[in-house]
Amino acid sequence: MKKNFITGAEYSLQELEKIIHLAMSYKKGIKIPDLSGKMLTLIFANPSLRTHLSFESGMKKMKGEVNVLHAGNSWQFEYKNGAVMNGDKQEHVKEGAKVISRYSDVIALRQSELVTTASRHNSISSWEILKQDEAISKLATYAEKPVINMESNMFHPCQAMADVMTMKETFGNIKKKKYVLTWSPHIKALPLATPHSQLLMPALFGMNVTVVHPLGFDLDSDVLKMAQEKALLAGGSVKISHDQYETFKNADVVVAKSWASLQYFGHWDKESDYRKQFEHWILNEEKMKLTNNALFLHCLPVRRNIEVTDGVLDSPRSKVIDEAENRMWVQMALIFYLL
Amino acid sequence: MKKNFITGAEYSLQELEKIIHLAMSYKKGIKIPDLSGKMLTLIFANPSLRTHLSFESGMKKMKGEVNVLHAGNSWQFEYKNGAVMNGDKQEHVKEGAKVISRYSDVIALRQSELVTTASRHNSISSWEILKQDEAISKLATYAEKPVINMESNMFHPCQAMADVMTMKETFGNIKKKKYVLTWSPHIKALPLATPHSQLLMPALFGMNVTVVHPLGFDLDSDVLKMAQEKALLAGGSVKISHDQYETFKNADVVVAKSWASLQYFGHWDKESDYRKQFEHWILNEEKMKLTNNALFLHCLPVRRNIEVTDGVLDSPRSKVIDEAENRMWVQMALIFYLL
Amino acid sequence: MKKNFITGAEYSLQELEKIIHLAMSYKKGIKIPDLSGKMLTLIFANPSLRTHLSFESGMKKMKGEVNVLHAGNSWQFEYKNGAVMNGDKQEHVKEGAKVISRYSDVIALRQSELVTTASRHNSISSWEILKQDEAISKLATYAEKPVINMESNMFHPCQAMADVMTMKETFGNIKKKKYVLTWSPHIKALPLATPHSQLLMPALFGMNVTVVHPLGFDLDSDVLKMAQEKALLAGGSVKISHDQYETFKNADVVVAKSWASLQYFGHWDKESDYRKQFEHWILNEEKMKLTNNALFLHCLPVRRNIEVTDGVLDSPRSKVIDEAENRMWVQMALIFYLL
Repeated sequence: MKKNFITGAEYSLQELEKIIHLAMSYKKGIKIPDLSGKMLTLIFANPSLRTHLSFESGMKKMKGEVNVLHAGNSWQFEYKNGAVMNGDKQEHVKEGAKVISRYSDVIALRQSELVTTASRHNSISSWEILKQDEAISKLATYAEKPVINMESNMFHPCQAMADVMTMKETFGNIKKKKYVLTWSPHIKALPLATPHSQLLMPALFGMNVTVVHPLGFDLDSDVLKMAQEKALLAGGSVKISHDQYETFKNADVVVAKSWASLQYFGHWDKESDYRKQFEHWILNEEKMKLTNNALFLHCLPVRRNIEVTDGVLDSPRSKVIDEAENRMWVQMALIFYLL
Repeated sequence: MKKNFITGAEYSLQELEKIIHLAMSYKKGIKIPDLSGKMLTLIFANPSLRTHLSFESGMKKMKGEVNVLHAGNSWQFEYKNGAVMNGDKQEHVKEGAKVISRYSDVIALRQSELVTTASRHNSISSWEILKQDEAISKLATYAEKPVINMESNMFHPCQAMADVMTMKETFGNIKKKKYVLTWSPHIKALPLATPHSQLLMPALFGMNVTVVHPLGFDLDSDVLKMAQEKALLAGGSVKISHDQYETFKNADVVVAKSWASLQYFGHWDKESDYRKQFEHWILNEEKMKLTNNALFLHCLPVRRNIEVTDGVLDSPRSKVIDEAENRMWVQMALIFYLL
Repeated sequence: MKKNFITGAEYSLQELEKIIHLAMSYKKGIKIPDLSGKMLTLIFANPSLRTHLSFESGMKKMKGEVNVLHAGNSWQFEYKNGAVMNGDKQEHVKEGAKVISRYSDVIALRQSELVTTASRHNSISSWEILKQDEAISKLATYAEKPVINMESNMFHPCQAMADVMTMKETFGNIKKKKYVLTWSPHIKALPLATPHSQLLMPALFGMNVTVVHPLGFDLDSDVLKMAQEKALLAGGSVKISHDQYETFKNADVVVAKSWASLQYFGHWDKESDYRKQFEHWILNEEKMKLTNNALFLHCLPVRRNIEVTDGVLDSPRSKVIDEAENRMWVQMALIFYLL
């Protein structure tokens, strides 16, 4: 049966470890597979720099081919069974997914609606609908080839796999290391997919995870519950805190990330006013000094001196460039694994 | 002398049969040519999913390279000889076609103006002007390399070749098979290029073609005349009918396609009102039962339950996904043939 | 240390000659290098036809791979050190340049702001700011891989290298040949990068360069000064004239190009009125008859019968198509040289 990579939690720890292991060996130039004649189709409903470049470069390093589709408003799938298609949507996912499959060996989709929703349709949707991740799950259902999630409403697992690889490059074994995901200030309401994966993935690897954020910035409760269960299985733990100073003590890794407050979903002006109160959550050198000389990670792009100070970003413990590079290696390993 | 592929009718039946034969063998993995170092340049004046993906995947399966140009409003060719170029058009096709030729081995163009005309410039053009297909014909004239039509105002021959291949996969010999092209309802005024080619191409292959459509949806009379002449030469026939039930009897293949009523060209609001009267032309299971267990084809994208019911699309006689896949194989054969 | 190609003047004449020599041999099919596994990333902040196609085709002729990024308004780098990034710019060039470097072996950027400035922000910038060419120079500073200028505010050196190659194809040795860059009429205020390079590059090769333009269309004085100094070193000369008829006498090469009058920078309506007075500067056959049967070059796209007459463009001495083709060969040589 074909595999997909939607959240990462579909895989056993052993499988995830194997993918990381492959990625680390590719980075050393060892056993890079030859995927001549294989076609990776990238579908972007949202623009992307890092994701696009890292997938394309990675596939081509393996001699494979890449198609890129930019799915704008002019091309949206219908997802409902039995729909009478008299609206904006000109193609049903049943046909779309199968047709793309005939021209491809692996398919990757980036479709994240939170930001769009915030700016344009704030009355027509809700987090309860968005969190169902209809686009990526229906594509995976109807596609005849493996589907990779390049960021959905809920998850961005490739980013979190790159984070794990970067931590393993420093620590080797990361089990029971203290991992802190700290909320960061930002001028915009950002999606939750990346922090969700940056919570879930280290839990899958058995790290001791603490998410620290201001009141009102809770991550999705289903993700939190899944992360807690998976962490227990892998010998780690998941905690929530609202005290940045306390949490940073003895941290081995600090990951900074901003996200929106879902309590104001659809009321984005209020969300913005609320968020502005927490500008002092910026990650600075003083806070990093509380840690156990922690690695610093950020998925990029980063707003310097808003989310994180120059001092932290330019310090020797900042691994953000390696982290971005590792996107490519880990995605290469993932594509090979799915094929 | 260099060849082009603009309508398909520039080729003898023997040549077309050879292209289909090559495509069928490529699909079985036999003798896929090695086009290393060859460059296919795709120029899209209109957006495209299937055409883009199928050309790109096909060329890369032959180890060739693909350039993609999106020609928006910002880059339009001047076509008139002696023009004083003080308007919107910044490059004459004389230079444009030759320059692209120097960077390419084969050039393919999609430029269809009907839809655009309908929505934006409905007073500045006419069908008499559009049917001259200036863009593709001037490109073919000035280009130093073979030119493929990926859909013009008048023809979409690659689609029709994929249809022929799909019919041959089922029937082997298609000569004198009863082929019905039936008009379908739609919420938009669609171009005529695809139905024109879906009329002309089976005629070239000697099928017994009937086009059935409501009054007022006549296809272009020059295309109809050419199809009738070519059908006679190949041992087939071309008929027009306005009675869907009568026509479907004994049909071996039913192809559904919507197109605009040209009698309202430039008066698209009236066209829309007129078109709405024919929603009962939807292709459903009841109508298909009248046929000789006919194959069902559609070029996609299809509006489910507007053009065609779920029951027809999801039936075992529906070959729409194979038809889409065959775009790739038949275009591979065509590119090889032109080189 | 890594090399970049920003103006061309960073290189000795010997090095430039070597690049041209390589390009000419590639065009004959001799010693085309194998760049399998090498990744060229093209970043376009402005749209492009010739540049995009010629780089992509060239890299692929050497079996290398190409990534293309279209950097719209949604993705702009911050360039200031210590910036508090609370505005439109979501990524600092420090991260951006390094991340792209990790996915690439060579990086090329097209970012020219003059036209944009003209149309949208005519009060927020000035030529003194634009001429610093912050985008390309900061990218070169922070990138870990060689950077090629595909057109900045100040220079378009790849175009000028293609011009040199085209002249050498006819003349062999071009030193001390009389080279005339003549200003052309146009309906728009065009950037100065191309004429700057079309002044500087032949000066680097020791040609006797005359730039002829109406009063008020001075090129940047720093470029002029650099060109004069470099020409002296290489045994040539640089002159400015305002008399087209006088200048054309004995010319061996005539290059036509339009550019904006910087004396009206930011006051583009006045620039347009002023420019309209010089429509008689069109290059026509009568003027070409004054020359020493000169070659005619133009970077394309060209506005026929506005900038240059049909008679000149269609004459046997017009090498504009070869010139466009040579973009590809000379860029191939440049990429190889940088690697």
